[in-house]
Amino acid sequence: MNAIDIIIKKRDGNTLTKEEIEFFIDRFYKKEIKDYQMSAWLMASFIRGLSKEETQHLISAILATGKILEWDFQVIDKHSTGGVGDKLSLVVVPLLASLGFKVAKLSGRGLGHTGGTIDKLESIPGFRTNISLEKFKELVEKIGCSIISQTEDLVPVEKEIYSLRDVTGTVDSIPLITSSILSKKIAGGARTIIFDVKVGSGAFMKDIKDAEELTSWLIEIGKSFGRDVKAVISDMDQPLGFAVGNLLEVIEAIETLKCNGPRDLEELAIEIVGTVASKDLAREVLRNGSAFRKFNEMIEAQGGDISNLSPSAKIYNFSIQDSGYVERLDAYLIGESVRVLGAGRYRKEDTIDPNVGIVLKKKIGDYVEKGETILEVYYNSEDKLKDSIELIKEAISISKDEVKRRPLIYSVYS
Amino acid sequence: MNAIDIIIKKRDGNTLTKEEIEFFIDRFYKKEIKDYQMSAWLMASFIRGLSKEETQHLISAILATGKILEWDFQVIDKHSTGGVGDKLSLVVVPLLASLGFKVAKLSGRGLGHTGGTIDKLESIPGFRTNISLEKFKELVEKIGCSIISQTEDLVPVEKEIYSLRDVTGTVDSIPLITSSILSKKIAGGARTIIFDVKVGSGAFMKDIKDAEELTSWLIEIGKSFGRDVKAVISDMDQPLGFAVGNLLEVIEAIETLKCNGPRDLEELAIEIVGTVASKDLAREVLRNGSAFRKFNEMIEAQGGDISNLSPSAKIYNFSIQDSGYVERLDAYLIGESVRVLGAGRYRKEDTIDPNVGIVLKKKIGDYVEKGETILEVYYNSEDKLKDSIELIKEAISISKDEVKRRPLIYSVYS
Repeated sequence: MNAIDIIIKKRDGNTLTKEEIEFFIDRFYKKEIKDYQMSAWLMASFIRGLSKEETQHLISAILATGKILEWDFQVIDKHSTGGVGDKLSLVVVPLLASLGFKVAKLSGRGLGHTGGTIDKLESIPGFRTNISLEKFKELVEKIGCSIISQTEDLVPVEKEIYSLRDVTGTVDSIPLITSSILSKKIAGGARTIIFDVKVGSGAFMKDIKDAEELTSWLIEIGKSFGRDVKAVISDMDQPLGFAVGNLLEVIEAIETLKCNGPRDLEELAIEIVGTVASKDLAREVLRNGSAFRKFNEMIEAQGGDISNLSPSAKIYNFSIQDSGYVERLDAYLIGESVRVLGAGRYRKEDTIDPNVGIVLKKKIGDYVEKGETILEVYYNSEDKLKDSIELIKEAISISKDEVKRRPLIYSVYS
Repeated sequence: MNAIDIIIKKRDGNTLTKEEIEFFIDRFYKKEIKDYQMSAWLMASFIRGLSKEETQHLISAILATGKILEWDFQVIDKHSTGGVGDKLSLVVVPLLASLGFKVAKLSGRGLGHTGGTIDKLESIPGFRTNISLEKFKELVEKIGCSIISQTEDLVPVEKEIYSLRDVTGTVDSIPLITSSILSKKIAGGARTIIFDVKVGSGAFMKDIKDAEELTSWLIEIGKSFGRDVKAVISDMDQPLGFAVGNLLEVIEAIETLKCNGPRDLEELAIEIVGTVASKDLAREVLRNGSAFRKFNEMIEAQGGDISNLSPSAKIYNFSIQDSGYVERLDAYLIGESVRVLGAGRYRKEDTIDPNVGIVLKKKIGDYVEKGETILEVYYNSEDKLKDSIELIKEAISISKDEVKRRPLIYSVYS
């Protein structure tokens, strides 16, 4: 068996065996197979596809290079495929914990135009996301939930593969996305995994067909690893809620936990929790404050202080010289406009500004008067504000005719 | 313009512009585009294909990173796509020179199971293949011919691309082969290029359709660069001539220049020369010794001494316990069996043994008695001999029924 023959076999559209995939991943992990060989293989796999069975073997092979977190009790995890204004984890994790679940959430940083839970949490003064796995386990057991940064020990090779995909045009492949997501989630040791699959301009899946396909892969292959997999497919054509930007989203998540949040955010949080519990009970723990108390417990346990959260930024009120109904509020462009402000990264080394972002005053279907504020831009640099506004202008269109509100939830797999 | 977008464009089967291809090659040459991005692009190009126009742009882009040899007179070059026992350059180059052509031949080393002219010439004591381009020009002008090692200055980026193709399963692509061959040949500055395209088990093109396709690409694209391109498609299902192995092939080439060589080798040499000159005249300069004198002149001028060429090796007579007609003499396996003996490399760093190889006593269609020698193995290690014999056994089959001799020449484009 050798690397070149395996690459050629996939290049020619043939199906790889379990042994071949294991060999390829293992030798890549040991640096015997080089980056340029992995990227040729990734491109061949992207174009020729991987079967569900091959994807299963790929996940097993990735898991074999790392370790799987062991839990003495049943643990649940939640994962979003990434969106704009998606602060759901901050709401759903304490909500599930207040219902008695043990939630062990491994999160990532922002990717491209999308935000990341870790970046959001780090905008809370003192909050630590890089605590040890031991401490993580302790917190999940004691409090019922904890959110930490995806650690490298679990599936180190996955990170290396992902970095290559990112720079070789091999990101948007359902088998490769499935293996990336599931290997990390399975390594986290959760028995139950709830996926929030986003679809629309601000998501990696642009149309519902692809989103459904990805969901079916996640469910089927996740189950083959003995996991109980639930999923919701939800809209990401416009941002979720009103706030986009790290600290702004934390504040909005807290408001939601206090039942003062945007309706779409609350509704989707309930729907996600509803895949494993009663929605009525979920609404109840929101209303009676236990979800918010759980959130506070978690934040405190990880060193955070939310007593004084207020973004240190100037505010620009964005309006246009037309009146009518908001027809488009392109999540991708809004995400990019917030990234430009400094809320996201262009290179790994970039530091982010937790204070900047956007707060929407209108959403699709809302009526806007000429000159009325459509959104507020929180900024700390005039130059960046200028670039951001260019993108915002592109993101928005207004119609004279009434516009239907967008559906929020497409499918639920519970 | 950026590397990832260009990779994605090709990945999705779209046609790249001249500017995109130039950008990609230029930035790769400057190491801003990384090996792993080039190999993803190569795999995408392999699977999706490159149009003739894209291939033209690729060649221009490769040429732009190096330099093109300038000549004060018209120069001719000859190139084989690679085979087993293919010592034609050693015969054709002096033959053309003795007919008055100026032959400037840039050659390579053995690749995989195939031999390389440079390795063969270096088995001649004292012969230098790494002379300067200045000296090369001087020799071509004075003697009429010279053969030197492909220098790195001409198209350095081509070598880098080739090294990647070799280890990422992206070798056998007609557009990529065309760009690799033509960029080197065009950089050599020859106005006329004669291609000997090999087809069969021992060639990179396994069937005649592919060989014809490659030939049409070489001719059409070569012409678009203002080159006069000729070609012959010839058989490589069995080795050419009798000798396979570096020094053994030099000796056979010399015998051919003395009109004592194998008939197929002489016939093909005449056919190749015939694409640019009269075959009768070619036969004449062989018969009257001027081609051989030219060969001697060239060897002497580059420091070589052929007065005492004799392989320092033991000889094993290979025979089998059947009688019948030779039906198969698989060129690929014979090539591999000679490589195993030490005549070829497995890694770039390997040194080769010029003395080892095979001399065929029979070719396809010949009758062989039980126990009669089919071929002689020249070896210097019992272990390697054993491995070699395993491959030789696989390479040969014998039929009770009479077997037709193979055609030698399939097509001539003159």
